[in-house]
Formats: sequence, C-alpha cells, structure tokens
Amino acid sequence: MASIFTKIVQGEIPSYKIAENEHFYAFLDINPNSAGHTLVIPKREENKLFDLSKDEYLGLMEFSYKVAKALEKSIPCERIGMSVIGLEVPHVHVHLIPIHTMDDMRFVNKQQLSNDEFVALAAKIAENVE
Amino acid sequence: MASIFTKIVQGEIPSYKIAENEHFYAFLDINPNSAGHTLVIPKREENKLFDLSKDEYLGLMEFSYKVAKALEKSIPCERIGMSVIGLEVPHVHVHLIPIHTMDDMRFVNKQQLSNDEFVALAAKIAENVE
Repeated sequence: MASIFTKIVQGEIPSYKIAENEHFYAFLDINPNSAGHTLVIPKREENKLFDLSKDEYLGLMEFSYKVAKALEKSIPCERIGMSVIGLEVPHVHVHLIPIHTMDDMRFVNKQQLSNDEFVALAAKIAENVE
Repeated sequence: MASIFTKIVQGEIPSYKIAENEHFYAFLDINPNSAGHTLVIPKREENKLFDLSKDEYLGLMEFSYKVAKALEKSIPCERIGMSVIGLEVPHVHVHLIPIHTMDDMRFVNKQQLSNDEFVALAAKIAENVE
C-alpha cells in the first residue's frame, strides 16, 4: 500500500508544498516542532535512510540543503536543525526544523498553526527556494 | 580558540576514533544516547551545518553514509538515526545514533560505558568501515 507520503506526492492527500523536482518533494510538517518544520522526501518509497543508494541519499541531502537555505531566509531562528528518524512513517523523510531552543529537536512540544498560517508560511518559504 | 572537536582532530584530546580521511573525522560520543552513538565532523571548524559550502556539506554527508553503514553492521538496532543540532559545540557535528526506541533520538537518556567498552566498540565499528 502506498505510504501517506506517496499519497501526498501523488496529490491524493493535500500538502503545504515548499518545493519539488523529479526525484524529491518538500512540504510542511502539519504537526510541527516549530513553525516552518519541513519534511523532505524522495518520491520513491524507501523505509530507511541508509538503504537509499549513495547517489539517491546524496540527491536527497542536496535537495535538503536548498530547502534549508530557504528556511533560514524565511524564519527567524537560531539555526536549522536536521533529523532523520523514521520510526512512524516507513518512507524516508528528512526533518528540517527551525531551532529556537533544544526542545525544538526533541519532538515533544508541538506548535498549533491554522490553515491560513500554514498556507502563508509555505508560500513564503517556497519563494525563497533558489 | 580551537573547538573541543578541533582538539580531538589534532590529538590534543583523546577520542575513540572510528574513521578519518583528509577532510572528515568520526569518533564515539562519550555521552551517548545509545551505545555506538557517533559524531562525524569536518576537520575545518564551521559553526552551522548550512554555512558549509554545498561541496563540503555533501562530503560530510557522504562520509557519514559510510560510517552509518559500518554502525548498521556493528550494532543490533532498529535503524541508524541522524541528527544535526549544534547548540552546544560550535563546530558542525552529525550525530549517528543506533535507534532502539524514539527516546534514543531525544538526547535525554544517556548510556554509561566503561573505557574498555568504548575501546572495544570503536574497534568493532572501525573494522566495518569500508
């Protein structure tokens, strides 16, 4: 069965899209650690990061770099953190998280945003993707 | 002043080394989230991950991939997690963490290992670096 992220890539489930190319897709996490928390995924389903081929892994990391730069320009924060865990959804996803305090990287405190806030945030970040 | 990680690279502070090449260095975190928790750093000091040039960033990620593969071979676990935060030491470091439960990625529970255990673990992982 297609993962929830594959359904997002295919447009069956809506998402607040930040950027995409042929192989990768970036969108806002709807249960964010902090505003701007973004997920970057390969369109091809793979469960574990280090099961990607080295080329696909490096492609994902290169795409994540571009998205992180856009986040830095869009969201005032200490820095952009990166985390890849993957215990919940078996489809590789890179978390890019605007960090204000260490707790933003612990996946414990979650932010509530309205649909309008998500739409505005995604548009702003997408504009800054080079 | 040189960062604590630069002192490790230069051998002024000892470390449980996993691997190194001209530009990157990997060693065991001595305050690990789980046994095998490894730090991968560029030898050149830079504070923030996304302030690295794209080439240096991709070099660091490629080196991390190699180390993660060795961790997978060495440590029974669910998968290897990756995290880059950097609020404590202003020298880029990639955390590669053998995950057993989500808590292993929260930087809250720490494992105690003896010097002998660290030495044996580093040797085992280093042997598996290809």
